[in-house]
Amino acid sequence: MTTSLGAPPAPPAAVRSRQDRGLADRIALSAATRQGVHLRTADVHAWLTERRRVNAFQVDRIPFAELTQWRFEDGSGNLVHRSGRFFTVEGMRVVDRDGPGREWRQPVIRQPEIGILGILAKEFDGVLHFLMQAKMEPGNPNLLQLSPTVQATRSNYTKAHRGANVTLIDHFHRPDRHRVIVDVLQSEQGSWFFHKSNRNMIVETVGDVPELDDFRWLTLGQIAELLHEDDLVNMNARSVLSCVPHQDTTPGALLSDAQLLSWFTGERSRHDVYAERVPLCSVSGWRRGKETIEHEEGRYFKVVAVSVRAGNREVVHWDQPLIEPVGVGVTAFLVRTIGGVPHVLVHARVEAGFLDTVELAPTVQCTPANHAHLPPRRRPPFLDAVLGAPASRIRYEAIHSEEGGRFLNARSRYLVVDANATEAGLDPPPGYAWVTPAQLSALTRHGHYLNVEARTLLACLNAGALRPQGGM
Amino acid sequence: MTTSLGAPPAPPAAVRSRQDRGLADRIALSAATRQGVHLRTADVHAWLTERRRVNAFQVDRIPFAELTQWRFEDGSGNLVHRSGRFFTVEGMRVVDRDGPGREWRQPVIRQPEIGILGILAKEFDGVLHFLMQAKMEPGNPNLLQLSPTVQATRSNYTKAHRGANVTLIDHFHRPDRHRVIVDVLQSEQGSWFFHKSNRNMIVETVGDVPELDDFRWLTLGQIAELLHEDDLVNMNARSVLSCVPHQDTTPGALLSDAQLLSWFTGERSRHDVYAERVPLCSVSGWRRGKETIEHEEGRYFKVVAVSVRAGNREVVHWDQPLIEPVGVGVTAFLVRTIGGVPHVLVHARVEAGFLDTVELAPTVQCTPANHAHLPPRRRPPFLDAVLGAPASRIRYEAIHSEEGGRFLNARSRYLVVDANATEAGLDPPPGYAWVTPAQLSALTRHGHYLNVEARTLLACLNAGALRPQGGM
Repeated sequence: MTTSLGAPPAPPAAVRSRQDRGLADRIALSAATRQGVHLRTADVHAWLTERRRVNAFQVDRIPFAELTQWRFEDGSGNLVHRSGRFFTVEGMRVVDRDGPGREWRQPVIRQPEIGILGILAKEFDGVLHFLMQAKMEPGNPNLLQLSPTVQATRSNYTKAHRGANVTLIDHFHRPDRHRVIVDVLQSEQGSWFFHKSNRNMIVETVGDVPELDDFRWLTLGQIAELLHEDDLVNMNARSVLSCVPHQDTTPGALLSDAQLLSWFTGERSRHDVYAERVPLCSVSGWRRGKETIEHEEGRYFKVVAVSVRAGNREVVHWDQPLIEPVGVGVTAFLVRTIGGVPHVLVHARVEAGFLDTVELAPTVQCTPANHAHLPPRRRPPFLDAVLGAPASRIRYEAIHSEEGGRFLNARSRYLVVDANATEAGLDPPPGYAWVTPAQLSALTRHGHYLNVEARTLLACLNAGALRPQGGM
Repeated sequence: MTTSLGAPPAPPAAVRSRQDRGLADRIALSAATRQGVHLRTADVHAWLTERRRVNAFQVDRIPFAELTQWRFEDGSGNLVHRSGRFFTVEGMRVVDRDGPGREWRQPVIRQPEIGILGILAKEFDGVLHFLMQAKMEPGNPNLLQLSPTVQATRSNYTKAHRGANVTLIDHFHRPDRHRVIVDVLQSEQGSWFFHKSNRNMIVETVGDVPELDDFRWLTLGQIAELLHEDDLVNMNARSVLSCVPHQDTTPGALLSDAQLLSWFTGERSRHDVYAERVPLCSVSGWRRGKETIEHEEGRYFKVVAVSVRAGNREVVHWDQPLIEPVGVGVTAFLVRTIGGVPHVLVHARVEAGFLDTVELAPTVQCTPANHAHLPPRRRPPFLDAVLGAPASRIRYEAIHSEEGGRFLNARSRYLVVDANATEAGLDPPPGYAWVTPAQLSALTRHGHYLNVEARTLLACLNAGALRPQGGM
C-alpha cells in the first residue's frame, strides 16, 4: 500500500481503519506489566545512582556578569544567547480586563523554536517498553531524572552548540518508517513561558536500538510505580506519557463530549486577557541585581544564572539563566465518583503566556506563598480544601520537578484528593467542570487543551497511580 | 441529573454517553430532506428579493476624510472606531525564515473580541431545520445573503453602538437549556485578519421561536441546493455548516487519524514564520491615498471606506472601512477516490495572521492576479491543473463571497476538481496530504485545524453538493 508516510509503493491503494484498534490493548498490557524484561523497577535507583557517579555533574550559581555565553542585549535589556538561539528572557505585558482592569509586567522566557520530546517504544516479549533516559538538567534539585528518550530543541539537533549528535533524534525527526503512537504540540507553563510549545511524540520501532548506558527500557506499569516517587520522572516525560492513548473503559461521563467542548469554548470566549512581549528593561515592579532579577515584594520567581559542568550532555561546559520560583507549588485534582465513574474537577485557567488564553488546569494550581498575604476569600478556590484534606482522602501524592533545563528547584506537590459534596458539589463554580480522565485523555490528541500541570496529573491517573478510595 | 450546564437538580447523579448517537441520524435525515415545511427551496429567491425591496440598503464608497465614526489614530496611524471597539486596521510585520529570509509588512484587521456565529436548530415534523437570516452586509456584491441566525461581535450584543437588540442572541450567549450541536472557535482569513477567531455554534431549541420576516427555517438538504448558487450562502453560514457533525459512513482512509495528526504536527513544527502587529503608518510598500490604502504594485488588496444606510441593521446609518481584494480568488480541492473512498488533497498552509502558523487549506487557494507576473515554476502548485480542468472533471463550482462585514467584493470561485494520477499522485509533495471529508469533519470539532476556505468547501462536500464523477 502506498502512503504519503513513505511506505514502499505497492498495488493497489487501499484504505485503512482510521483507528488502530489493537493499540489500546497493547497499551493496557504494558500498563499491567509491572516488571520489564530489562531492568527490575527496584533496580532503577541503583542504575540512576551509578549514572550520577559516572557522570560528574556540577552546577554553580554565578553572577550575571560571569555568564560567558549570554548577555543583556543593548537597548531591550533582554537576556540572550550569543548565537541568538536557544531561548531569551524578555518582558511580558499583560492586560487583564476580566475583573477590574488589571495590568502588569513580568519577565518571561521566549523560546519560539518547537522542540521534540520523544519516547521510543518497542515490544519485548510481546509487551511495549519505553526507552527512558537518565538525564542531567541543571535546575533539578537532584540533577538527574528519568526523561524521554530524546529532548531536543531545533538548535540542539541542528547543532547550534556543536556538541555530540543528539542521540536517537532521527527516530523522531523523520518518523516515516515508524508507527507513530503520539505526536502532538503541547504547551508549557504559561506564567513563565511566552507561547511555548513542544512536540510530544511516542514512536514505535521494530529495528535494533543500540544499548546505551544512560538509557533503559521500562513498561508503563514500571513507570507508574516510579511516578509515586519524588523528583524522579521529569516534566517532559510526564507530559509525553499523559498523551498515551488509553482506552475509555467507563460507560460515560457527567457531560457529553459535546457539552464539555462547548463549556470549554465558552470559557475561552469569555476571558479578555491580552499579553504581548516587551523589552525586559521595561518590566516595572522587578529589580535587576548582580545575581538575580526579582519581584519587588519577593513574590513569584527570580531569574538567576548558573554554570554547568557535565560529562554526558551535548557539550562539556556551559552557562545559562534559569527561573527559580519562590516556593513549592501545590497542584491538585479533586476527584469524586459520579454514577460509578471517577471524575476530576478541571479549571479553565488563564495563563498570560498561553497561545490561546485558557487551558484546562488542575482544580488547584498555585504557589501558596504568593497568596499568603491575601484574605481567605481572595485565596485560590479549593486551596484550603486541598491543604486541609486528611491523609485518608489523599489518593495520590508526590513532589515533581518542572523542567530542569529552564527552572531551578521548581517543585510542586502533586495531589489527587477525594472531594466531599460540601466543598465541591456537582454544580461547581464558573470556570470549573467535572470530567473523566478518559475525556482528558481524548483531548491530549490535540494541543492547547490541557496545561502541563494537568498533563502531569493525568499521567499519574492514567498510570493507575491512585490509591484505593479511603485507603492509605 | 444535576450538571454544570444548569439542568435542574435531581437525584442521583448519573453519567451519559460521551457521544450523542442519535444526532448523526437526525443530521442525515435533515440532509436527505430536500423540502422544508416552511419555505420551498424554489421560493428562497422570491423571499430574498422581497427582503431586499422592503429594506432599502445603500452602500457608497467615501473618502477616509468623510468617515464620521472612524479616524486614523495619532502616532500609529491605525484606523480605529471612535468607541475603541469593533475592529481596527493596523499593520502586520511578517518574518518568514522558511525559505531565503523574507520579511514584509501589510495592513491587517485586528478584532480581538470573539464574536458569535450561531444557527438555531429545531425539529419540525421530525426533521431538523435551521433558522437562516436574510442579512445585509455592506461588502457583499449583492448586499443581502443567507446568514446564520445570529452573527454578533461582543460589541454588538453588549450594545456598543446602541442599536436595537441583537435578535435571538440569548439562545447562544446562554445556551444552558439548549442542546448544543456545534460550539467551537474557528479562525478566519489569516492573510487579512490578525489572530481572528469566531465562535461557531449550532444550538437546538424545543421552545417557540417568534416568526420574523428576515428569518426562515431550512433543512440541510435545502441549504445544500442553495450552496450551488453564486453569492447566496454567506461565509459565516458556510463556516458554521462545515462543523455539522456528519457520521463517517466510509470504511477508512489512506492515513489513519494518528498518521494525519502526526503529519499535521510535523507541518506545524517545521515552519518558522513569525508575525507581529506594528503601527499602520510603518507599513512600507503600501501607500495611503484619500480613498484607499493600496499596495505599491497594485497587488493583494486595498483598504477602502464605505457609508451604509440600511433599515434592518442594528443602527440605521454607519460608516466603516472594508478590505477590497484586487481580483476573484480560486479555491479548489482536488478529489480522487482511493480504495473506494473519496479523498481530498489538503494543503498545510501558512497564513501570517493565523494564531498558530499553519492550518489545513484547500489544494489551491489564491488570487491568480497576484501570481500572474511569476514564472510557471513559482506559481502556486496545482493552480494550472485546476484552471485547466475540463468541465467533465469539475464536480462542484460556485462563486462565494467572503465576509461582507469586513470585505468588499471579496469573491472566490470554489471548485472541487477530479484529479488524475499524473498531476496529483498518491504520494503528494511536502505540505500536502490526501484525507477524507469525514476526517476533516472530525477536525472541525476543534479550532485552528481547517481554515475558513477549507471549511467552505467542506460545507459543500458535507451537503452532498458534488455532482457525480464525470457527469455534467
